[in-house]
Amino acid sequence: MPSRNGRDTTREHLRVLADSLASRGVDVEGVVARLKRQEVETPSWGYGNSGTRFRVFGQPGVPRDPFEKFEDAAQVHRFTGICPSVAIHIPWDKVDDFGALQQHAERLRLRVGAVNPNVFQEEDYKLGSICSSDPRVRRKATDRILECIDVAKATGSKILSLWFADGTNYPGQDDFRDRKHRMEEALLEVHRALPSDMRMMLEYKPFEPAFYGTDLYDWGISLITCQKLGPQAQVLVDLGHHLQGTNVEQIVAILLDEGRLGGFHFNNRKYADDDLIVGSINPYELFLIFCELVAAEQSEDARVRATANAVAYMLDQSHNIEAKIPAMIRSVLNVHTALAKALLVERGALRERQLTGDVVGANSKLVEAYETDVRPLLARVREELGCPDPVDPLGAFLASGYLAKIAEDRKEGVAAGWS
Amino acid sequence: MPSRNGRDTTREHLRVLADSLASRGVDVEGVVARLKRQEVETPSWGYGNSGTRFRVFGQPGVPRDPFEKFEDAAQVHRFTGICPSVAIHIPWDKVDDFGALQQHAERLRLRVGAVNPNVFQEEDYKLGSICSSDPRVRRKATDRILECIDVAKATGSKILSLWFADGTNYPGQDDFRDRKHRMEEALLEVHRALPSDMRMMLEYKPFEPAFYGTDLYDWGISLITCQKLGPQAQVLVDLGHHLQGTNVEQIVAILLDEGRLGGFHFNNRKYADDDLIVGSINPYELFLIFCELVAAEQSEDARVRATANAVAYMLDQSHNIEAKIPAMIRSVLNVHTALAKALLVERGALRERQLTGDVVGANSKLVEAYETDVRPLLARVREELGCPDPVDPLGAFLASGYLAKIAEDRKEGVAAGWS
Amino acid sequence: MPSRNGRDTTREHLRVLADSLASRGVDVEGVVARLKRQEVETPSWGYGNSGTRFRVFGQPGVPRDPFEKFEDAAQVHRFTGICPSVAIHIPWDKVDDFGALQQHAERLRLRVGAVNPNVFQEEDYKLGSICSSDPRVRRKATDRILECIDVAKATGSKILSLWFADGTNYPGQDDFRDRKHRMEEALLEVHRALPSDMRMMLEYKPFEPAFYGTDLYDWGISLITCQKLGPQAQVLVDLGHHLQGTNVEQIVAILLDEGRLGGFHFNNRKYADDDLIVGSINPYELFLIFCELVAAEQSEDARVRATANAVAYMLDQSHNIEAKIPAMIRSVLNVHTALAKALLVERGALRERQLTGDVVGANSKLVEAYETDVRPLLARVREELGCPDPVDPLGAFLASGYLAKIAEDRKEGVAAGWS
Amino acid sequence: MPSRNGRDTTREHLRVLADSLASRGVDVEGVVARLKRQEVETPSWGYGNSGTRFRVFGQPGVPRDPFEKFEDAAQVHRFTGICPSVAIHIPWDKVDDFGALQQHAERLRLRVGAVNPNVFQEEDYKLGSICSSDPRVRRKATDRILECIDVAKATGSKILSLWFADGTNYPGQDDFRDRKHRMEEALLEVHRALPSDMRMMLEYKPFEPAFYGTDLYDWGISLITCQKLGPQAQVLVDLGHHLQGTNVEQIVAILLDEGRLGGFHFNNRKYADDDLIVGSINPYELFLIFCELVAAEQSEDARVRATANAVAYMLDQSHNIEAKIPAMIRSVLNVHTALAKALLVERGALRERQLTGDVVGANSKLVEAYETDVRPLLARVREELGCPDPVDPLGAFLASGYLAKIAEDRKEGVAAGWS
Repeated sequence: MPSRNGRDTTREHLRVLADSLASRGVDVEGVVARLKRQEVETPSWGYGNSGTRFRVFGQPGVPRDPFEKFEDAAQVHRFTGICPSVAIHIPWDKVDDFGALQQHAERLRLRVGAVNPNVFQEEDYKLGSICSSDPRVRRKATDRILECIDVAKATGSKILSLWFADGTNYPGQDDFRDRKHRMEEALLEVHRALPSDMRMMLEYKPFEPAFYGTDLYDWGISLITCQKLGPQAQVLVDLGHHLQGTNVEQIVAILLDEGRLGGFHFNNRKYADDDLIVGSINPYELFLIFCELVAAEQSEDARVRATANAVAYMLDQSHNIEAKIPAMIRSVLNVHTALAKALLVERGALRERQLTGDVVGANSKLVEAYETDVRPLLARVREELGCPDPVDPLGAFLASGYLAKIAEDRKEGVAAGWS
Repeated sequence: MPSRNGRDTTREHLRVLADSLASRGVDVEGVVARLKRQEVETPSWGYGNSGTRFRVFGQPGVPRDPFEKFEDAAQVHRFTGICPSVAIHIPWDKVDDFGALQQHAERLRLRVGAVNPNVFQEEDYKLGSICSSDPRVRRKATDRILECIDVAKATGSKILSLWFADGTNYPGQDDFRDRKHRMEEALLEVHRALPSDMRMMLEYKPFEPAFYGTDLYDWGISLITCQKLGPQAQVLVDLGHHLQGTNVEQIVAILLDEGRLGGFHFNNRKYADDDLIVGSINPYELFLIFCELVAAEQSEDARVRATANAVAYMLDQSHNIEAKIPAMIRSVLNVHTALAKALLVERGALRERQLTGDVVGANSKLVEAYETDVRPLLARVREELGCPDPVDPLGAFLASGYLAKIAEDRKEGVAAGWS
Repeated sequence: MPSRNGRDTTREHLRVLADSLASRGVDVEGVVARLKRQEVETPSWGYGNSGTRFRVFGQPGVPRDPFEKFEDAAQVHRFTGICPSVAIHIPWDKVDDFGALQQHAERLRLRVGAVNPNVFQEEDYKLGSICSSDPRVRRKATDRILECIDVAKATGSKILSLWFADGTNYPGQDDFRDRKHRMEEALLEVHRALPSDMRMMLEYKPFEPAFYGTDLYDWGISLITCQKLGPQAQVLVDLGHHLQGTNVEQIVAILLDEGRLGGFHFNNRKYADDDLIVGSINPYELFLIFCELVAAEQSEDARVRATANAVAYMLDQSHNIEAKIPAMIRSVLNVHTALAKALLVERGALRERQLTGDVVGANSKLVEAYETDVRPLLARVREELGCPDPVDPLGAFLASGYLAKIAEDRKEGVAAGWS
Repeated sequence: MPSRNGRDTTREHLRVLADSLASRGVDVEGVVARLKRQEVETPSWGYGNSGTRFRVFGQPGVPRDPFEKFEDAAQVHRFTGICPSVAIHIPWDKVDDFGALQQHAERLRLRVGAVNPNVFQEEDYKLGSICSSDPRVRRKATDRILECIDVAKATGSKILSLWFADGTNYPGQDDFRDRKHRMEEALLEVHRALPSDMRMMLEYKPFEPAFYGTDLYDWGISLITCQKLGPQAQVLVDLGHHLQGTNVEQIVAILLDEGRLGGFHFNNRKYADDDLIVGSINPYELFLIFCELVAAEQSEDARVRATANAVAYMLDQSHNIEAKIPAMIRSVLNVHTALAKALLVERGALRERQLTGDVVGANSKLVEAYETDVRPLLARVREELGCPDPVDPLGAFLASGYLAKIAEDRKEGVAAGWS
């Protein structure tokens, strides 16, 4: 990869690449346009301290309030060009005046993204929130979620993003079917309260913090629940929330086909819900997921196309030991890279080989796109988006002095962390 | 466990057990009645040779035709008392006169159980059957399935049991959504052809023989497909067809709640689809599954109750290195044991502890039932069912001389095996 | 299981059981003697608050210092009869006067068990302890471990128990071989510092908190490290520290055969390192592990026998949502149950069937032992050990009023928790 | 990637790439030289029919004897330039005159590679080979292995490659420690029989065809067995033989550090031992493995360097549905690609970032190498090696008419398949 001074090399590389792509029939300008349209939402909690159950390691310069989190998010947007929105967590990001938060965001050329209610960090939620056997706890949790709809209205957000820690740790602890009924009842109330232009997204997860049975444990239970709720309910796919061996790209394809893929929480995993930088462990999987998304965007089926075009792309990671803003920039670069490669797949040739049973040939069309070095393309995209250093966003951020500045500025005051 | 001569010890043990259960409020007679009603279907192919991709080991006395498979199955029924039906595979069990096969079964006090079309063992199916990109192959596979409905009619069977090897081995090999559409189209045709008193069951499996993406890969895709097909389509749960860590009993509970649990293929696994003797690796999981079934049978929800009462219990195992009939008897014993223990759970006390959040206490109610030695109960059940040796079915079968007899009788002629 | 008033029923049950076992040639008195000799160490940190990365739920009456932890541990010992020692964690259990702690333990009829240094909860350890690339951090961690040898001397402990959180989260973060060399160097220094009557145990874990590569990731790397260190180094097996599908009982057998099985951290898991109550998810696996231990105790190989007899049995669980002392009692009961069943395996008959290739028959010998209800045997064992209620230890503890008492007594003061 | 006529484009691309690499301090000529030295052995059985337990799909033109398998292997070598040796399986590849086979190989510019004894496909091996409880079976299996040493001598091979299907399917079936002792005894005899210039390699596998416990189940048991045998025993790593989540590159690093990494069986997996085309499911893992190998080749430790330089790279895949020779070519390309990228890692900068704890920065050095499009480099390598079409080996082979020719020539005669 070229150094920060490598623009000339990159330009020459871009010219060779563009020629090569054009000769294969790729619409390079279309690809660039699509790459410029991509958005990746970063989460406010990704800028705060986080950790494992063994230790939360603090970092210098960690934001002390939601406003400072947005300031950090603005840096990621500035250097990558495609991160204009920030997801918030309630009550972590609760402020007296959400209008002020929204204006702060706008001044930073940002907006408030998905609103995420937290219904797992109070004593009351020890045995569950909306699935609890205690009606008082269910009421409290549902009210918290309804409150988040108000926060969304106050901040211009159009997405209510729901993840539940609900589940059981031991066989017999509670009844699976009873819990399912309680969940359905609460979520129906939430869906009814949604304004017509807002979506709710239902995230699933196989385990952790529940270690025997989680109530929303996979895409299937999320999907059939959404189908019961109504048209504004969609499934949210967190890349780390799958059992070993799950074919995530196939789930993405199925949810697109059913018109119920709402969005993503991007991250990567090798073992459990490791919440590592997206694409850092298995970049090819990320590419294959984007292949499904790009195919759906170009589908002849209008519903599939509309679903794909409305997908919300969000990061949800836990930078326990690495610097947070650099990790976020690396993540966004990895996402952009995967999308760029997916856009280079020669779909006509691929389809022809699929229909004729040419197994190795069809696979080779993916390999060829994946092997392409798309960094020159992305540099052009960032140049057109006005990023300070289109060739090396990470290096440019590190050289900007921002990290030293916040380490100094935020020395005093209590850090408002993830836990 | 007592030897074959241990009836007196067993009687005394039974008396102590019955007293103890009665003092805990267990309806012992009800438990016995339920255990007598249980049926476990054995598969014709379980009596033939089977193996891994590395080797199929032949066994002496292996049946040479479907009629002999039924004779072996009759032995399992004779010694266990609860295996009156036999699943068949077409074309493995294709005979000129299915009426004759049915009469043969009746003479053996058996009946024909689920009919299973085989659409994976011909060259045409190399890249799939009803999901193939080749319309000729799809037509052929669908016709094979429709033919099986006729076989079911001719043999008095009420269940069409469908498993597909369809899937892909490489990214890009075929399009997930296209394959889904082809599958839905073919299955709709099948569902329309069902007589009103017949059910079709849709089995899922995450991988093998497809190693990248399987078209019916989990309970979720099976369920939503069944919902599209109509009321006679239900999901079949094969215990070996799950990724590591899957909470199978929760899936069972959800499918019961949705009224779509059709039946089981029982076996056990430690790694992949190992097809070992059910209960041989994780007997507690089998117990927990039966806990869900028993709870559903006693549910206040009529649909849940009806669904549970109609569940088809079938074995589907691969006895690669162990003698087949003894393995089948051991399997049936393990199933009966798990059910018996599940029937002993004090459901009232369990529920009370669940509702008060008594985690260890609720779990203890399952542990107490599970720790009970139910062999005396099962001996009584088999005695009432007229089994030759109610205390030791496996020992009695081994002592019966049947294995030596078939080894001698079936020396000549080609064994009709699993592959 | 009989209620607290069920002693008569239990006696009758015991008589029937003893007769049945004796008729099978089981040495009932020998079994009882072995069960009485069993010890299970409980960990001081298991009595304090614990949780997941999402939330640590506090419990009423949680101990405020190491002395109160020992008081809780004494309750577990009182009701189960087999928990005379308590593992400690340094610095969590650091006190000014370890002699006083030891005397406190003795007054409670307890002793100090394994000493566990904590080298993962300080900023310095963010990128590792003895594997860190920073020599200062390695020195600090090694010194902490050496300090724990002094604590062991001061408290009469004979076991230094080592678990390291060391590892990396990202490819490239550090060099695997360099880290291995640093680890070997530090552990050699530790081994050299051990008094001749003390053992060090090296625990392995595949992941968490490191999510890419853990330095001591499996039994193999622990074993070859121990072999390099010297005769006082042995492997510690934590039941939750394995990848899905691992055959833990086989690892136990191999380590016994190599003379390097030091001890266990008991708990149970369904997904990751869930730290649930031992035997609560897969009790059969626990039984199979004890089958290997019992076989080794009876081995003709003197080294194998000596290794088995010196194994340290310890609990290491995280009772996040359930009451801690009841969970500990349940755990000890589960361990005792598994051992009792393993002692009932007819080893002669098993061996004969193994040598003649009788697969189903050999397996049946394990099933028969496992299906036996051993609760009457354990009641007799606890009666002879002088436990207050031999039939129902858990019920008796709950009825004792201890929980209410500590909830009242320990209201004030800061709880000294796990994190 | 450019079409077959794309040499000019490739040349320009190569020039840009070389400039860019040189500016980063990469020794491009050294990289090219290393890529030319690489060898990848293909297995004779990979050219024959193979399948799953459900079906072996035949392919037109499949070789009918070992001589024809070598002819197919010669095609792979011709188009890729780096596959000069062919592994053989005994008795699959047993011929009357091994000298003739060797001369046939030489005429094809090939040589005989690793010799693999098959001790799993006879009735005698149903319950194991060298671990069987039957001494006659153990003797037979050991003799078969000793015979393979003779075959190796007769064919000029220097590697005896050992994989055992040995294991058990059920708890209790056999004794883990007894089986271990039998294995050690047999392997000691084999090691003693090795000529001084021959190595034996011990392959491990967690499961399949044994589904409860496999005797050589992981790298740890293989390694400690090799250490007992002597200096000519090394571990063979098959990429598909690991439990989900295993960090294979770390195992590679540890085995290199211990001087015991003998070689690889390359393939890829998503679920179990899927035996797919290497790099087709997770190309980044393959890259990370090569990063360890390249680092070891450049190590300051002479033993590590020597071990790395002697590693045997072999394919072991099962092309069940795809054409075999094209699949083999694709596999070799994927291996060459991974190695090329690993050679581009800036090791000095990487090390510096590792030592300063720059987590994101260190990781970025791997990402930068991985993102590079190395196809122009590989084209140059193949050009220098004299391949017919350096830019598109797969396309060139497909256009060569070889497949049509063998489909015609080999119509008659029985195919000598994998099973």
